[in-house]
Amino acid sequence: MATDSGELRDSGEPIVPGPNSVGFVEKRSATLFVPPNPLRLAGGGELGPVTVSYETYGELSPQKDNAIFVCHALTGDAHVAGWHTPQDRKPGWWDEFVGPGKGLDTNRYFVICANVLGGCQGTTGPRSLNPQNGEAYGLNFPFMTVGDMVEVHAELVRSLGITKLLSVVGGSLGGMQVLEWAARYPAMIQSAVCMATAAKLTAQGIAFNAVGRRAICTDPNFHSGQYYDKPQGPNVGLALARMVAHITYLSDASIEMKFSRRLQVGDRLSYDMMRQIEFQVESYLHHQGKRFIERFDANSYLYLTRAMDYFDLAEGRGSVAQALSQTNARFLVTSYTSDWLFPTIQSKELVRAMIEAGRHVTFIELESAYGHDAFLIEFEWLERLVRPFLEQTLLAVRQSSFGVR
Amino acid sequence: MATDSGELRDSGEPIVPGPNSVGFVEKRSATLFVPPNPLRLAGGGELGPVTVSYETYGELSPQKDNAIFVCHALTGDAHVAGWHTPQDRKPGWWDEFVGPGKGLDTNRYFVICANVLGGCQGTTGPRSLNPQNGEAYGLNFPFMTVGDMVEVHAELVRSLGITKLLSVVGGSLGGMQVLEWAARYPAMIQSAVCMATAAKLTAQGIAFNAVGRRAICTDPNFHSGQYYDKPQGPNVGLALARMVAHITYLSDASIEMKFSRRLQVGDRLSYDMMRQIEFQVESYLHHQGKRFIERFDANSYLYLTRAMDYFDLAEGRGSVAQALSQTNARFLVTSYTSDWLFPTIQSKELVRAMIEAGRHVTFIELESAYGHDAFLIEFEWLERLVRPFLEQTLLAVRQSSFGVR
Repeated sequence: MATDSGELRDSGEPIVPGPNSVGFVEKRSATLFVPPNPLRLAGGGELGPVTVSYETYGELSPQKDNAIFVCHALTGDAHVAGWHTPQDRKPGWWDEFVGPGKGLDTNRYFVICANVLGGCQGTTGPRSLNPQNGEAYGLNFPFMTVGDMVEVHAELVRSLGITKLLSVVGGSLGGMQVLEWAARYPAMIQSAVCMATAAKLTAQGIAFNAVGRRAICTDPNFHSGQYYDKPQGPNVGLALARMVAHITYLSDASIEMKFSRRLQVGDRLSYDMMRQIEFQVESYLHHQGKRFIERFDANSYLYLTRAMDYFDLAEGRGSVAQALSQTNARFLVTSYTSDWLFPTIQSKELVRAMIEAGRHVTFIELESAYGHDAFLIEFEWLERLVRPFLEQTLLAVRQSSFGVR
Repeated sequence: MATDSGELRDSGEPIVPGPNSVGFVEKRSATLFVPPNPLRLAGGGELGPVTVSYETYGELSPQKDNAIFVCHALTGDAHVAGWHTPQDRKPGWWDEFVGPGKGLDTNRYFVICANVLGGCQGTTGPRSLNPQNGEAYGLNFPFMTVGDMVEVHAELVRSLGITKLLSVVGGSLGGMQVLEWAARYPAMIQSAVCMATAAKLTAQGIAFNAVGRRAICTDPNFHSGQYYDKPQGPNVGLALARMVAHITYLSDASIEMKFSRRLQVGDRLSYDMMRQIEFQVESYLHHQGKRFIERFDANSYLYLTRAMDYFDLAEGRGSVAQALSQTNARFLVTSYTSDWLFPTIQSKELVRAMIEAGRHVTFIELESAYGHDAFLIEFEWLERLVRPFLEQTLLAVRQSSFGVR
């Protein structure tokens, strides 16, 4: 998803974080699965050591009971909130939702986010060097799944001395990870917030991913994934993949509102086939493609979209209800009226399965014109839901701990 | 749109047309706009002579009052119904709707369809030779609009000795042409059937077209449109354009029904990044891309999608209502519940404008799971609407002619 939330600074003046910002934050890194204990992947491969890039916000309580893990979406990263330097152009991708007094209130909670396995923002992925030959993996990176991503993040959480998470929170592919957490580590999470997500991707979603991958793989600069030592990678294909994906993140109404049929130059049509960009919406999409290639790796895009295609919470577990039957976690599920990539009907199916599994679940379809991207944009209602949901979870956890003592 | 309707024959046996087929039909060709009377295009260019490929079905009445002009969609052609040879693999693209006793009943009506200007199925387009230098036009083909397409078809109709059409019928880009007919030649048409269309394309529609054009123009084999004498054209880009467009022609429900998450090979996931096609929906899309490049020209795709982007019935006419205020034609407008490329809301806007213009209009939103392609697939309800609509139009025409005598 776009990590477009947050303030854009074009003034060049150094940023001075406000009182409701987490302020300046540091990138951290952990080395896990060190041989002879490598990560064993669902597809049969092994990886080790695995580097995990992560950030934390707020303070871990002495009882270590206030940790929340945030799962980022397809093209996100560990930098959820705050600024790395005063020169940053924008803050973390969920800065409006994570900070002092915000939805995930860093005055109360210890928030962790890590780049996913297979990503390209610090965690081991296809661009990393294969320790066996010192070369970038490319397509020799082992096949990986959403389950493998969660496996790595669970190990990170344990390495931080945390045995139970107050909550796991995420949208889209991040929401798939949240569901996988609940199925894979049922005792490790006390609650889960699943936003704009589903127990599996629709065939239409797979179709859009297929087009994106096709654009990358047919780019003459792809070189079967071994493009890292070449002057140029499959930038054209990656930009195309982003363009088509970006359309699926917006709603028809939000594109209409933002651009309608407005022209890029002047108010008269050019009647010129040489002009590739005539309408503003075209310029916007081209710009999205261009910005994306500056920050993302094409091989990561292939691996992560494939992991998304593969994700099926029920697979090997009988059903979605059975997959969620082992956890006592409370669930909060949100969908968005104009999201057609992960439509509300899928959230409802998920909620039905949660109820069937006897889980405590709160569900709301939020009114939004922003399509799938709504979970990165609409915070007012979300905060009103998430804050009491987390408070009640923490209260229940502390009461139960107190009772046990 | 896909011209995928009709019977597929893989047996190799020669076809024997049934009693409700138009049978074997011939491609025809007309040469119009012969210098010194060239076609003057909306963008300022000139073309002449213009070759128009067309077909007709049924018999023109002695009064010449039973002619119906069919406008094809983006990637269609003049071959609406019947077979060219006994070896044809499938019949014309609307064979289920056009024939003896069918929706457009060739026992009663004289049906004409012609390939559009800028197309690649016989009518002058970017692949045609420029008479000034004997070379294929490529991107030197003049800029053209939906209005220019209609200009050419109106001239064809006149050249057949027909001064009034009983009806103009079309869906999608074909429906845009129908609307343009009503605005441009208000006295020439007695009725109009507008299916799955709109007075202008949405910004989302422009966005999808932009991705398709980008895929073509960034293909290294595009050579700025001058690829006709090269060993290969921009097939990879054109196939990609088709893949993404094809998704927009289907509904999420129809893709889900047809493919769900079924695998292409066996019933186990491969966990193999080298396997580019894992799910059936991927195979289907790749196949659509592959078939498309066998029959379509990339430059035509650029020109026709751009014409579609440009189309705005109200432009230069004040409003849609004003654009339709000069005609006495009766309108039948259909939309389809699962069509998200030309959603029902756009048909309703159109109908409101027709009512404002004082036109006689029948509107129905038809229930269908087939998305935008529904107008090429769903005929049962459509026939029930179209047949009486045309009968009443013909009756009114003949009564009025009789009254005049």
